[in-house]
Amino acid sequence: MIKVAIVGGTGYTGVELLRLLVNHPQVQIQTVTSRTEAGKNVTDLFPNLRGHLDLKFTKPENLTNNDIVFFATPNGIAMQDTPSLLESGVKVIDLAADFRIKDVAVWEKWYGMKHNCPNLLEEAVYGLPELNRAKIAKANLIANPGCYPTAVLLGFLPLVEAGIVDLNDLIADVKSGVSGAGRKANISALMSETGESFKAYNVAGHRHWPEICQSLNASTGKQVDLTFVPHLLPMIRGIEATLYSKTLRSIPLTEIQDIFIQRYQDEPFVDVLPLNSYPETRNVRGANICQLAIHQSNNRLVILSVIDNLVKGAAGQAIQNMNIMNNLPETTGLTNVALAP
Amino acid sequence: MIKVAIVGGTGYTGVELLRLLVNHPQVQIQTVTSRTEAGKNVTDLFPNLRGHLDLKFTKPENLTNNDIVFFATPNGIAMQDTPSLLESGVKVIDLAADFRIKDVAVWEKWYGMKHNCPNLLEEAVYGLPELNRAKIAKANLIANPGCYPTAVLLGFLPLVEAGIVDLNDLIADVKSGVSGAGRKANISALMSETGESFKAYNVAGHRHWPEICQSLNASTGKQVDLTFVPHLLPMIRGIEATLYSKTLRSIPLTEIQDIFIQRYQDEPFVDVLPLNSYPETRNVRGANICQLAIHQSNNRLVILSVIDNLVKGAAGQAIQNMNIMNNLPETTGLTNVALAP
Amino acid sequence: MIKVAIVGGTGYTGVELLRLLVNHPQVQIQTVTSRTEAGKNVTDLFPNLRGHLDLKFTKPENLTNNDIVFFATPNGIAMQDTPSLLESGVKVIDLAADFRIKDVAVWEKWYGMKHNCPNLLEEAVYGLPELNRAKIAKANLIANPGCYPTAVLLGFLPLVEAGIVDLNDLIADVKSGVSGAGRKANISALMSETGESFKAYNVAGHRHWPEICQSLNASTGKQVDLTFVPHLLPMIRGIEATLYSKTLRSIPLTEIQDIFIQRYQDEPFVDVLPLNSYPETRNVRGANICQLAIHQSNNRLVILSVIDNLVKGAAGQAIQNMNIMNNLPETTGLTNVALAP
Amino acid sequence: MIKVAIVGGTGYTGVELLRLLVNHPQVQIQTVTSRTEAGKNVTDLFPNLRGHLDLKFTKPENLTNNDIVFFATPNGIAMQDTPSLLESGVKVIDLAADFRIKDVAVWEKWYGMKHNCPNLLEEAVYGLPELNRAKIAKANLIANPGCYPTAVLLGFLPLVEAGIVDLNDLIADVKSGVSGAGRKANISALMSETGESFKAYNVAGHRHWPEICQSLNASTGKQVDLTFVPHLLPMIRGIEATLYSKTLRSIPLTEIQDIFIQRYQDEPFVDVLPLNSYPETRNVRGANICQLAIHQSNNRLVILSVIDNLVKGAAGQAIQNMNIMNNLPETTGLTNVALAP
Repeated sequence: MIKVAIVGGTGYTGVELLRLLVNHPQVQIQTVTSRTEAGKNVTDLFPNLRGHLDLKFTKPENLTNNDIVFFATPNGIAMQDTPSLLESGVKVIDLAADFRIKDVAVWEKWYGMKHNCPNLLEEAVYGLPELNRAKIAKANLIANPGCYPTAVLLGFLPLVEAGIVDLNDLIADVKSGVSGAGRKANISALMSETGESFKAYNVAGHRHWPEICQSLNASTGKQVDLTFVPHLLPMIRGIEATLYSKTLRSIPLTEIQDIFIQRYQDEPFVDVLPLNSYPETRNVRGANICQLAIHQSNNRLVILSVIDNLVKGAAGQAIQNMNIMNNLPETTGLTNVALAP
Repeated sequence: MIKVAIVGGTGYTGVELLRLLVNHPQVQIQTVTSRTEAGKNVTDLFPNLRGHLDLKFTKPENLTNNDIVFFATPNGIAMQDTPSLLESGVKVIDLAADFRIKDVAVWEKWYGMKHNCPNLLEEAVYGLPELNRAKIAKANLIANPGCYPTAVLLGFLPLVEAGIVDLNDLIADVKSGVSGAGRKANISALMSETGESFKAYNVAGHRHWPEICQSLNASTGKQVDLTFVPHLLPMIRGIEATLYSKTLRSIPLTEIQDIFIQRYQDEPFVDVLPLNSYPETRNVRGANICQLAIHQSNNRLVILSVIDNLVKGAAGQAIQNMNIMNNLPETTGLTNVALAP
Repeated sequence: MIKVAIVGGTGYTGVELLRLLVNHPQVQIQTVTSRTEAGKNVTDLFPNLRGHLDLKFTKPENLTNNDIVFFATPNGIAMQDTPSLLESGVKVIDLAADFRIKDVAVWEKWYGMKHNCPNLLEEAVYGLPELNRAKIAKANLIANPGCYPTAVLLGFLPLVEAGIVDLNDLIADVKSGVSGAGRKANISALMSETGESFKAYNVAGHRHWPEICQSLNASTGKQVDLTFVPHLLPMIRGIEATLYSKTLRSIPLTEIQDIFIQRYQDEPFVDVLPLNSYPETRNVRGANICQLAIHQSNNRLVILSVIDNLVKGAAGQAIQNMNIMNNLPETTGLTNVALAP
Repeated sequence: MIKVAIVGGTGYTGVELLRLLVNHPQVQIQTVTSRTEAGKNVTDLFPNLRGHLDLKFTKPENLTNNDIVFFATPNGIAMQDTPSLLESGVKVIDLAADFRIKDVAVWEKWYGMKHNCPNLLEEAVYGLPELNRAKIAKANLIANPGCYPTAVLLGFLPLVEAGIVDLNDLIADVKSGVSGAGRKANISALMSETGESFKAYNVAGHRHWPEICQSLNASTGKQVDLTFVPHLLPMIRGIEATLYSKTLRSIPLTEIQDIFIQRYQDEPFVDVLPLNSYPETRNVRGANICQLAIHQSNNRLVILSVIDNLVKGAAGQAIQNMNIMNNLPETTGLTNVALAP
């Protein structure tokens, strides 16, 4: 059994990790931490876990008796404890952004704080299995990808890897449910503010933009020119990315479809839908899956990509990484079906 | 392996049965029928099942090579085929209302049609395991309870069985998500009609009222006087029942709580929350569980009961019944955690 | 022109007052205050008012050059400034609870603070026009009713005034949209917490219970026994109250209907629907109206009552009171049609 | 008083016309037609109009005693009656698509039917006041624009008219609430299908695409290359368009902002927000307004445009056109404030 701790267990990625891990056959949850809720039953905060988990929140101490520590904390927390955990032989999966960007100057600019262990940035593996599976298997420190980057990269990678689209002309128009904003007391995430309404935000710059560019640049060896516009949906879970690009030469749609199918033929959690399909976020709700569809509109390729931001965009992907790191079948504990309707 | 067929696989209870059964370790889904969609892949209609089910819809024929047939059909369909299936040794679980009411005259009045096998009404077992577990184990024909009756009965049964409340003074104010209206082309269930709004309906009479009364009467040997008012919630899944009753004598709340805890102590799918709890429908979303809480307001007992109408109120309960009929552990295939948020 | 100030203009009742007052032909909005937003354009916070209002938030000072001051503040604020405003000849309409309860001990118990001008409680008029129109016309200080009390009282008053129902057996099962929780940073009001879910809350006691009882007691000269259970709806605006009572003698439903029609025949903002109607909250969204319907279920009367909690339950009713106080036609500025769908 | 009829009064654009027209000071609603509901009170279907309208639905006959007939019908209906109405001297405003496309071959291709009065296409004026005000003033037949085209055109027109963007590189990623699908019994518009989910649709071709292109082409004298991808939002009202284009030369954002401000400085219903604003659909809900904001992301211009699809995208714009045709102040009857939250 893999002994795990979840640090920061009171947010949405924390409870989502718990939802999935309590039924994982190879995992023993030893510790769930929260500074503010220490001493309280986890199920008092999250009654959906009643009958599945009998633990109290503890302060984030004595984490070294675990095999793996998941950080489901705000940005800037995981980097405090990661060095000592790694030294103690504990592996770390950070669901926040502390280790996602290789260039510490870029990280510090976008995240507005000083990084306290930049030496670990090189060692950290960006935990997108479809890109880095071999490295993940040997990693001690995983930077679990952001939710937007997961949806966007899985849609763009086959195109940029195949070298068939203009890298100076990539647009990602992405839309996210409000759980992406986290479980924080914030007027802007109230139902009265976000329900029955829709808006774009952070057009001039979103922290997930450099993260996406980093992986696209690495895949192509060139600097891509990506326009990235996030929007807020009046619903809880789900991300949809509508991706626009131009092919460098005329290519039939069926050929593009084949490129996607071959790229993902061995991937358990990326599903290329038949031509003429329209992926819906509800069809991946609660499941660790990305559904993709290929379209053309006028002279452009339009790739549609949907994930559950809390699962393939966070907790599910973290468990997928854990499975790979432990040489388990990658789908272990991740076979539940999406909840639709 | 239990070989099963689902008749009427294009509705919400049908797809919900599939969602749960594809991961049931003892079940082999052989047939999913639909007159209108025959020949089409099930996953074309329900892409959330992609990767989990490789079947085409068929016409509802040749069902006798199954061990169990689930009817997820409109009222009045199951009773057509049930007699011949039973004769062939196939067991039947009807998720519609055809066999829920013992008195054929009452059934025909409320459902507005002639019953074509009233002789089976006596044999049919009302599939509320918390009430009829022993009978279910031996049954060949299960009338799976309605969603409202499940929520209301699980809340009222401990009180009426204990004989501590006035049977002439029961009120059930119940609220349901719109999936209860089914997957039918109907203006009144459009999002533009039901979103961001709330209303009561069918105050003067709802088909679930005689079904609830039948079980309460049977439990008490008396005629209860139940006021039942259903409401439509602007959300998809979930039922909440707020139940009002008066105790015949003054009883401390802790004693009422104990009555509930003892009544359900061996029940895997009924969870009595601690005093001062407020059950939320999201905490049972997708899970086969009823969460209950006991309150007092002024001089009345107020019982709060929540279920997912498609799971403990339909498909999950049907599988629970199937497990009991097959002498499997009752929780087999039903251990997934509710999806919150 | 009536010169008005709105104190606490950053909450939902504040912006709703502004939405309605900018088109009121007899009102000049002079001042909108906010300690935290002073200096900022009101339309920066509320872009729906762009083109309709050219004011900046100011600190709550120099309010005496207004004819009427609306307090759209949290409980406990209005009572600070009201004595001096009244002395200066300024009339006050408090949309919070400071002056709703006549008995200061009861108020201090439920609101958990000391009242700083209990001497004004007698003078304050409870601003439900359908109950106190004549007093409102002469009042200098209006306690604008709570949202739940408005919906419940308008449904129960005809019955208790007519003396035809058992006063020891009143139940109000009420449901509110989340805007009732206000525009405050609060985890429990996040869309991720309240969307797609439903729950009861505060069963043991809600501050609106003594407010409702006070008016029912005053109308009957007796102590009523009211069970009041509030619930939270996954939507923004709207309250529905389902009210249960027993008639003291058998009365045909048409006679009850007549009692309601006569009680409200001259009321511009109470609409008794035809028999067999089901009021929907969307049909009063944004409008200053209460729609009522009369039903029977089993042996009980069931009254259904819907309002928009921010309009007839708050800002609209405040303006209705202002119209009465200024001898204007009561519907002035309040004739907009509900926004459905 | 302008005497008007509404043909097809049972859909969402019909009831929205009624909501706005009942308070229009210069309009007398004489007739509301519905073949299916003839004889029934309009308020039986739309209780939000109670107290504002005392009319019964009639069959669509004897329309010639009106000054203006609004067609709020499905495509293909208005063209049946328009020739005879025009001959009788009655003006027509069609809220459907019958007269929007000048090229009858294009129209017949996209709408899949034969046009029965192609001779009127030239005479028909495309009713976007910001483009065609002078022609509208003299028109007898108005083709009221589609909802998507209104949002997209108001965002793109200043750029293409100024000749500063690459016409071969226009993308409109647009999102609409479900009321755009109309009030029709349709499984795909059920709340259980569209709630809490998001998807793109009709990527390969949507009927609003040729309509948008026609106006952009006419404004520029060139063929634009527009990629148009519509999406379905889990909410009722509102359209947001995120528009991507590339400037032909480097232009500071403030200069682009000035171009928009000058273009719309005299427009009562187009509001250019300050730089760094994010328009939200709720801020235009129920109001006849388009709010626009100008952004840059990487090397692209990103224009954000929001309208209420039923108001500026349909009924409100139709009334705006009626005002212009009748030489009334353009804002008459259209001054209500958007309903937020």
